[in-house]
Amino acid sequence: MAEDTGRGASRRAFLKGSVAAGGALLGAGAARAAEPDPLITEVQPWASGLGEGVDATPYGLPIRFEDDVIRRNVEWLTADTISSINFTPIHALDGTITPAGCAFERHHSGAIELKKEDYRLMINGLVDTPLVFTYADLERFPRENHTYFLECAANTGMEWAGAQLNGAQFTHGMIHNMEYSGIPLRTLLHEAGYSGETEGKWVYVEGADASSNGRSIPMEKALDDCLVAIKANGEALRKEHGYPARLVVPGWEGNMWIKWIRRIEVMDGPVESREETSKYTDTLADGTSRKWTWVMDAKSVVTSPSPQSPITHGHGPLVITGMAWSGHGRITRVDVSKDGGKTWETARLAKQGENKALTRFYLETEWNGEEMFLQSRAMDETGYVQPTKAQLREVRGENSIYHNNCIQTWWVKENGEAENVEVS
Amino acid sequence: MAEDTGRGASRRAFLKGSVAAGGALLGAGAARAAEPDPLITEVQPWASGLGEGVDATPYGLPIRFEDDVIRRNVEWLTADTISSINFTPIHALDGTITPAGCAFERHHSGAIELKKEDYRLMINGLVDTPLVFTYADLERFPRENHTYFLECAANTGMEWAGAQLNGAQFTHGMIHNMEYSGIPLRTLLHEAGYSGETEGKWVYVEGADASSNGRSIPMEKALDDCLVAIKANGEALRKEHGYPARLVVPGWEGNMWIKWIRRIEVMDGPVESREETSKYTDTLADGTSRKWTWVMDAKSVVTSPSPQSPITHGHGPLVITGMAWSGHGRITRVDVSKDGGKTWETARLAKQGENKALTRFYLETEWNGEEMFLQSRAMDETGYVQPTKAQLREVRGENSIYHNNCIQTWWVKENGEAENVEVS
Repeated sequence: MAEDTGRGASRRAFLKGSVAAGGALLGAGAARAAEPDPLITEVQPWASGLGEGVDATPYGLPIRFEDDVIRRNVEWLTADTISSINFTPIHALDGTITPAGCAFERHHSGAIELKKEDYRLMINGLVDTPLVFTYADLERFPRENHTYFLECAANTGMEWAGAQLNGAQFTHGMIHNMEYSGIPLRTLLHEAGYSGETEGKWVYVEGADASSNGRSIPMEKALDDCLVAIKANGEALRKEHGYPARLVVPGWEGNMWIKWIRRIEVMDGPVESREETSKYTDTLADGTSRKWTWVMDAKSVVTSPSPQSPITHGHGPLVITGMAWSGHGRITRVDVSKDGGKTWETARLAKQGENKALTRFYLETEWNGEEMFLQSRAMDETGYVQPTKAQLREVRGENSIYHNNCIQTWWVKENGEAENVEVS
Repeated sequence: MAEDTGRGASRRAFLKGSVAAGGALLGAGAARAAEPDPLITEVQPWASGLGEGVDATPYGLPIRFEDDVIRRNVEWLTADTISSINFTPIHALDGTITPAGCAFERHHSGAIELKKEDYRLMINGLVDTPLVFTYADLERFPRENHTYFLECAANTGMEWAGAQLNGAQFTHGMIHNMEYSGIPLRTLLHEAGYSGETEGKWVYVEGADASSNGRSIPMEKALDDCLVAIKANGEALRKEHGYPARLVVPGWEGNMWIKWIRRIEVMDGPVESREETSKYTDTLADGTSRKWTWVMDAKSVVTSPSPQSPITHGHGPLVITGMAWSGHGRITRVDVSKDGGKTWETARLAKQGENKALTRFYLETEWNGEEMFLQSRAMDETGYVQPTKAQLREVRGENSIYHNNCIQTWWVKENGEAENVEVS
């Protein structure tokens, strides 16, 4: 709330005692300002001099006061930063678009620099006319624009073993949501003469980096909504997101969104590559592994309040917010619980849910210092309801790494701080 | 098209003569590759070593190959960079979202640095309870999310005097389109006890910078869809866009979107400030000036091909693209002409037009080196059709600076280069 910083007396007598702090009507924690506020009554330095000119930042970065809103690595998670992960600072964001600059990265052999001039995309295998496209070729095909979330299959993966990472950025930050401009993969397959009359029921896609990160994708999905994207949020893809072209596989695990895409082979079956057998499969309770779990099920998380975004403004009105998404389509409803899932309130969706894209939710409430066990629970257009951790473990055991879409709990303490916990 | 760079023979004999350049089916300008392409047949450096790790860029910037996609100033337009303008590189963007880093800036006394802790917003005048809000107070009110374009009233202003600036960035780049998260202005007015029963039919809004840039806004608009925005594209506003809070006045001229918003006074009439009398009014043919022309009428521009985005890929398939917007609501249709407005084809809208937001359009066509006089013509949900320059001059004369929403012409030459021209 407004505080008297003691810097001087009022220059405008009319203000004295007649202007209330904005919190006055907000709740018990706020009080009418006893003394005039110099930030209102005194001319401040920023109001009496010139600011920065337009040549200062041809391409701008966030203001320095926001320098904690960055991608962060968790050093102990992996052995090196080349094959490692960083996380989107979702606890500090609002709305649905993720700015590219702080959208998480995951590489298998590091982010490569590949010039448009050096870029080639080959389509081969069971097609009539194997083709090689340059970047300029790609720009000549009809483009579509769609906003989609990308979630790493390992997002929330550490939580299988219990409440481990203390912040929404770390538990749920392997996700971003961007507007892509790209060429439907079906267009390129048809250009290569793929007719649907061959044995070509799968595509195998690989990237130009050393890992190649090859993945098999069923032809049905390839022909449905996959894009070869050349822009994200209006501009060229960032290096770390696959410049100059990446595959977009809407609603499916991020590992399949091949970056620096260089080859698409039409095949009669899946390759069963490393990335789809020893990795990105789900080890079940009996030790067997479940494969082909590509679709990211409905999921949500409260981003504020959360461990990195505690309540600092005192008692009274509180906006609880978070995001929800489903690889199966649109989010239709999000519920919020303050008591660890005993009772639920339906949150307000900022906009109608978009297909395979992030949906922002809000719950406006009152908070007066009581302990909360905050949860959110997403529902999608298929009728699916996001499960609890217990429900998920019942099906999957505790040996999994991937595809953890359980309900998350934040313990909000009496002082407004929050902590990652499990509730039984 | 794919070229033989002469670096070596094929390592994969099966490729020789069997893989066509992607352009093969694209048109006459493309040819089947005579020799194998080392970029396909040879292992490249980026495929045999490690790329950059995830700690490299906690907040990332575009890849260095895109360092020409930046905001640009036009030095001769204004005397200094403090009160000047730079322009969004719209010729290089696709989709609808403008990344904050290259979204244009216009300041009246430079971009100021204002900490959240030092931020205050006062509502005074004809209200029951004058209030002062801190930034933390603002965060406690219910927020909405909306994507809106912001266009400077002077966008395309130099074109009144003829075809002057050779590039879409300079003729039409005083525009951006972002997803805002903010508090409805009506919520804050009601918090201050504004009931609608007073004489308060206007608000006067000013910013915390030295210029203060005060503008009067009719109460009807203030209560309708104005927001006090605290985020844009998910993250905190950039310094140059009004950190930590700016006014959003959907569909109305950018000058009214007060940055660093510090005061809202409810009044019984407009202030008739400098910014709404000597500036941001339209001088007509008879020398009188028209005021209160706040709404930005429907407008569009072809962004590619354009002077800064020539055709470089040879003959055959060509994607013509651009963007359209209307301060009155949704774009319903965009037509494209290749012959300076004699004949028109209806373009494809990438998505259904959104209320007061940019709409992307595409026209897929064939180009075989013929001269074109490219134009686009937007229509909005009110039935309004974007006028020609001649139609606009008929009403407005040639003395205006602001509110030029005329149809733009690019002369595309036989070599694919483009130039800003007027057609009679």
